[in-house]
Amino acid sequence: MNSIVILDTSLFVNPASSHVFGPTPTMAFQEFLDLAREKLDTKFLMPPSIYAELMHFAEEAKIPRELLLVVHKQPPKKHELKIPAIFIYELVEAMRDRIDRGLRLAERHTREAIDMSPPPKGEHHKGPRADAEVIGRLRESYRRIMREGMLDSKADVDLLLLAYETGGKLASADEGVLLWAENMGIPILSYDHLYEFVTDK
Amino acid sequence: MNSIVILDTSLFVNPASSHVFGPTPTMAFQEFLDLAREKLDTKFLMPPSIYAELMHFAEEAKIPRELLLVVHKQPPKKHELKIPAIFIYELVEAMRDRIDRGLRLAERHTREAIDMSPPPKGEHHKGPRADAEVIGRLRESYRRIMREGMLDSKADVDLLLLAYETGGKLASADEGVLLWAENMGIPILSYDHLYEFVTDK
Repeated sequence: MNSIVILDTSLFVNPASSHVFGPTPTMAFQEFLDLAREKLDTKFLMPPSIYAELMHFAEEAKIPRELLLVVHKQPPKKHELKIPAIFIYELVEAMRDRIDRGLRLAERHTREAIDMSPPPKGEHHKGPRADAEVIGRLRESYRRIMREGMLDSKADVDLLLLAYETGGKLASADEGVLLWAENMGIPILSYDHLYEFVTDK
Repeated sequence: MNSIVILDTSLFVNPASSHVFGPTPTMAFQEFLDLAREKLDTKFLMPPSIYAELMHFAEEAKIPRELLLVVHKQPPKKHELKIPAIFIYELVEAMRDRIDRGLRLAERHTREAIDMSPPPKGEHHKGPRADAEVIGRLRESYRRIMREGMLDSKADVDLLLLAYETGGKLASADEGVLLWAENMGIPILSYDHLYEFVTDK
């Protein structure tokens, strides 16, 4: 056992990374586990929060239990672990940038709504369809701005901290997770090398 | 010298905290320095970023130089310092909560703009005045949601880290800074006790 790899949900859910293992999250995860079982020089870890997230997509009951044991569920020691202070500055700055962009987006949608052509005579408001369409676009753009390349869940933080604590490589297909791993100085296993890594004995 | 106090801009700018020292930021800061010079058992620190922030409000040239030396400009050792990992979870969660509220606010303003009564006949759009008013309200509410109780600048992070590093008390009149100091386990000097603290020899 000479290496540790921390696995993210995205590897088995994201089409770009999962298709090499199987057509569905369940089949992709099972095939990965089947290969990983033979990869004796590596210990595979998953924070319990990430495992739970994956089980929203994969059907646990369809995967043999002995295979599930190939991945060790291990949370980071978040109450003992300490991380470099510089990381906080980067997080606060990234948030500020997104908050500014969120406001500009909200302003643009509000302006567009004000400028929308008035309703036909006899109607009192522009109706639920115009409303739903504009709001739908606002939501989609807002979520994209706020989430892309951002650290936005406890499970993502678990991944980074577990990799930092164990000195393991982090395997993910999520841009945000990979970017923040880089900010923390965490080694990465690129998702498009995962198949070759796990089949190389 | 048996105590360290880290000073925030807000103490001399926020009306609630500065009025006990003087009617303007310049006079309040000068009066504080005059009293602090005699407080021989305490070392007063300010991160350079906070000092620069204060000098946007106070006129440095009007304050005697020997008084300015009473406050030591010291940045945190941000490249060496390590902080508890649990802090990252709290920051990411607080951010998520604000992002959700920001989206609801943007949706509400966009809906209101859609429902605005149509412009009088002969005009092609609702004109710049309606626009400016709605956008103005959106900005104000958005900034309030995103900033209140939040850690949102490098200077704020400097304050917290310097207090954490030195073991000093943090003196601030900013709700966000005080809340995050509590999250980090940093001792606080309440701004409404600062006058009594600095005059107690």
